[in-house]
Amino acid sequence: MRWSQMFVPTLRDDPAEADAPSHRLLLRAGYVRQLTAGHYSLLPLAVRVRAKVMGIIREEMDRIGAQEMLLPAMHPAEPWRRSGRWELMGQEMFRLRDRRGADLALGMTHEEIFATVARELGSYRRLPQQWYQFQTKFRDEPRPKGGLLRTREFTMKDAYSFDIDRPGLDTSFEGYHGAYTRIFERLGIPAYPVEASSGTMGGSDSTEFMCPAEVGEDLVVRCPACGYAANIERAASRLPEAGDGPGLPAPERFDTPGVRTIEDLLAYDAPADRQVKTLVYVLDGALTLVLLRGDHALNQGKLVSATGAVEPRPAQPEEIREALGALPGSLGAVGVTGLPVIADEALRGRRAMFTGANIDDVHLRGVDVDRDIPVGTWADLREVAAGEPCVRCGEPLVVERAIEVGHIFKLGDRYARALGAEILDPDGARVPIVMGSYGIGVERAMAVIVEVHHDDRGIVWPLAVAPFQVAVVIAQSDDADVAKAAEDVYAGLAAAGAEVVIDDRPERAGVKFRDVELTGIPFRVTVGRRGLAEGVAEVTARATGETVKVALDAVVPHVRALLGL
Amino acid sequence: MRWSQMFVPTLRDDPAEADAPSHRLLLRAGYVRQLTAGHYSLLPLAVRVRAKVMGIIREEMDRIGAQEMLLPAMHPAEPWRRSGRWELMGQEMFRLRDRRGADLALGMTHEEIFATVARELGSYRRLPQQWYQFQTKFRDEPRPKGGLLRTREFTMKDAYSFDIDRPGLDTSFEGYHGAYTRIFERLGIPAYPVEASSGTMGGSDSTEFMCPAEVGEDLVVRCPACGYAANIERAASRLPEAGDGPGLPAPERFDTPGVRTIEDLLAYDAPADRQVKTLVYVLDGALTLVLLRGDHALNQGKLVSATGAVEPRPAQPEEIREALGALPGSLGAVGVTGLPVIADEALRGRRAMFTGANIDDVHLRGVDVDRDIPVGTWADLREVAAGEPCVRCGEPLVVERAIEVGHIFKLGDRYARALGAEILDPDGARVPIVMGSYGIGVERAMAVIVEVHHDDRGIVWPLAVAPFQVAVVIAQSDDADVAKAAEDVYAGLAAAGAEVVIDDRPERAGVKFRDVELTGIPFRVTVGRRGLAEGVAEVTARATGETVKVALDAVVPHVRALLGL
Repeated sequence: MRWSQMFVPTLRDDPAEADAPSHRLLLRAGYVRQLTAGHYSLLPLAVRVRAKVMGIIREEMDRIGAQEMLLPAMHPAEPWRRSGRWELMGQEMFRLRDRRGADLALGMTHEEIFATVARELGSYRRLPQQWYQFQTKFRDEPRPKGGLLRTREFTMKDAYSFDIDRPGLDTSFEGYHGAYTRIFERLGIPAYPVEASSGTMGGSDSTEFMCPAEVGEDLVVRCPACGYAANIERAASRLPEAGDGPGLPAPERFDTPGVRTIEDLLAYDAPADRQVKTLVYVLDGALTLVLLRGDHALNQGKLVSATGAVEPRPAQPEEIREALGALPGSLGAVGVTGLPVIADEALRGRRAMFTGANIDDVHLRGVDVDRDIPVGTWADLREVAAGEPCVRCGEPLVVERAIEVGHIFKLGDRYARALGAEILDPDGARVPIVMGSYGIGVERAMAVIVEVHHDDRGIVWPLAVAPFQVAVVIAQSDDADVAKAAEDVYAGLAAAGAEVVIDDRPERAGVKFRDVELTGIPFRVTVGRRGLAEGVAEVTARATGETVKVALDAVVPHVRALLGL
Repeated sequence: MRWSQMFVPTLRDDPAEADAPSHRLLLRAGYVRQLTAGHYSLLPLAVRVRAKVMGIIREEMDRIGAQEMLLPAMHPAEPWRRSGRWELMGQEMFRLRDRRGADLALGMTHEEIFATVARELGSYRRLPQQWYQFQTKFRDEPRPKGGLLRTREFTMKDAYSFDIDRPGLDTSFEGYHGAYTRIFERLGIPAYPVEASSGTMGGSDSTEFMCPAEVGEDLVVRCPACGYAANIERAASRLPEAGDGPGLPAPERFDTPGVRTIEDLLAYDAPADRQVKTLVYVLDGALTLVLLRGDHALNQGKLVSATGAVEPRPAQPEEIREALGALPGSLGAVGVTGLPVIADEALRGRRAMFTGANIDDVHLRGVDVDRDIPVGTWADLREVAAGEPCVRCGEPLVVERAIEVGHIFKLGDRYARALGAEILDPDGARVPIVMGSYGIGVERAMAVIVEVHHDDRGIVWPLAVAPFQVAVVIAQSDDADVAKAAEDVYAGLAAAGAEVVIDDRPERAGVKFRDVELTGIPFRVTVGRRGLAEGVAEVTARATGETVKVALDAVVPHVRALLGL
């Protein structure tokens, strides 16, 4: 490939709109351009990297016996209605109508559609099966951001396992866990598995693969001592026993003029961990009281998991006043009727607690949660904070930002039941297939590689995913001898099977060096006037910046060795 | 690969819904399943064939220096509005709104979007450029049919050329013409180029690659003598000179009781080629008179090309009566005012003609078309019929059914002007880029290969696109010696680089043979008890049915030679 003929529109300056290093660099280095928010054009270098990434994923899928398919991106509403996700997916699913008025969706994921195909499996003898595809997914993200990190349209490798029972699913799941570990290792992404929330996917268990990154939108709770790791939407920590005294026989009112916050109430001898914090949420239209300990924060993802709510939002002050007769600052659940109450597990069995009295500037003391509050649902709602004791080993937890690069789910039989994907078991009984689902976003993986592998001069691709392995730079394009020597090296490398580009543009050497560095090509071979006089070329490694002089006739074997060819 | 682990749901019987041989066979042989009308799931064997087809197309694109990109499938309305195609595409374009209410389209094609990217080219020095992608296209077809032949969602290889001027475009166009010729040859598709109508694409010239097939939806007019070939929407034929006499000084009315058709009027000494046939169309809401010679048929595609109409339809009798005062059978354009009149070229200069008088049961004779009829537009509207003289050489034309497998367009600067894709020319002036566009439907190509290559036992894939090159069949799975010998052959072929599958299912040999034939795998190696006793296996070619006995230890080299490995 000749650089003079390629479309690689590198930019001199950082683009203003870029909000993450990978976004900035992929724009600057001429890999991507935005068509509109959340939709990117992949230019030639990006398509080459994408093919490499997909090739690695495909190899690891094939290695575990998965078969590649390609299911439609556009779906009729019917299978989504059968699973209940036509409603559940809410605004995130793009919907449209065809010329006959039929409801259609663009696939955000394909559990329903693969389950439809799996109806034909027929017998347990055909199980297990592992099916995967690379297919465009469409998601109407509220806030597309970070370039390729969060888009509305992207390629996903999604895989689905089909087993006769739970132990079979466990085996399949382990297979994907291993494949994902190998994939991220080969891609140069230092991802680790964490316990995750299953969200709208449902099912019993899920594991996310997380890559630490400052621009990550996820928070991972991790124990450096024992290795425990979980998404903060799922993570737990150990709490010391409360050891409450007997408390009062009944709650007592006391005046708290001007008290609006947990801190304000401290002045009334009410430590934060003795307060019951009362939040009011509207969950799919229903006003709900959400109770936590005063020193604990709500994790909204946990609230969603616990309630299955599709559209949760904090209530407005006027909604709260109408329902409870008081404003935030004096709210409580004691004696409340007619509203659902969901309480965090940390409040279970607590006595001698403080809470609002639903009268402005009045609170209650001596509250016994089990006795005085009509809790309808107990759940883990509390967001773990850094430094809390690990739920497993008791050592202090850390919280770090990360990007989700893969997510694998044990789905169970939810989709098979809904879609009628049943098989005959060895006894001749019709049973639903037990499914798993396994996803990697291809373009996000590309961006994450850049997040991990870059420096102040540009991208530093790992060899396995680089768009080209080597760039041959003609330092002085107007010198026919230099050009000839460089072309010979280029031809030799191409013949040896290297993925090589020659920078034959009529530009200064500095411009060419900058572009090779910016675009992140792992090795640069420079042929210039001075070296030619000595009979050498320079070979520079992008990752280390190290340059060695190599005799011209030894360049090809030298680079072959570097590339492992 | 082991057949026992693959998902290849072959069917015993022909599926009822199949309306083309490729549709029937791809369903029966377990390649595809319909999700809903126009949307197909590609199962593992189909994905393997698709990868082969894409690989061949990619090689030929790369060979002419085209660079692969990937542009979004979902588009904002704006670029489509700028080109005027937001309206022009009508109901065939899927449209939707996002959560903010913004208008979006799903790409039917990508001229506008590639032109948007081309804005960055900047200077004539960067031209020519050839860009392509494999991207899903969505089209809300009124009648999806024929399985993969006409779907609402399919993969297209679409390429775009960018040149500084017309001669550059001509050169690029020739490059794609050559590449397409090689692609179809390598795919085993006997396609030939024909002159085509450009439809909504616009531009000066276009060429379709057509594969003759009974199920084709296109008609090609072809001259076996000189090689002239054109889509019937564009084809012309030679007409003899009319040699009309002077005619009458003015048209004369005469009564024609009960006359409704061209044939009826013959009785009044009015030969069909002396009649002016008056059709009434509604073109985008506007009533229009369309005139042809009595013995000629209208080609509606030509009417659309001539007028640019998006939604043409024949007028209803009541609309006609209201506008002209008569019913079909007595219509004419003599003296008509206030309605556009478009006439076929074959009527130009004709005298002494017959036509309706716009009074029921009354006609006119002695009509001089140029003198008496207010023709607003002259155009080629007539559909060529088989047997007419070739427009080039005068020999009789044939008309044959065909499937369009590729279409290449000289677009000119229409899209570049609309989208602002300009470059600086050598004089420093800003000029619009001259574009071409070039498309092949990948899944349609797969289906066309099956249309061409099948017999009564199933598909007969050409080697270059077969999902597997060889199937090793264990004739008696319960015989350990047979199984062992077959597994050895399988391992040897795999090690030799053959794409090989072993049919290790506990099925009768006949079932296995049927599936290998149905799925169209080019070579079958059968290892059975009887052969084993003689130390031989059977090698059968799918295309010829020919079977040869080969010594077991010679099977691998024998098959390697067949495969050219």
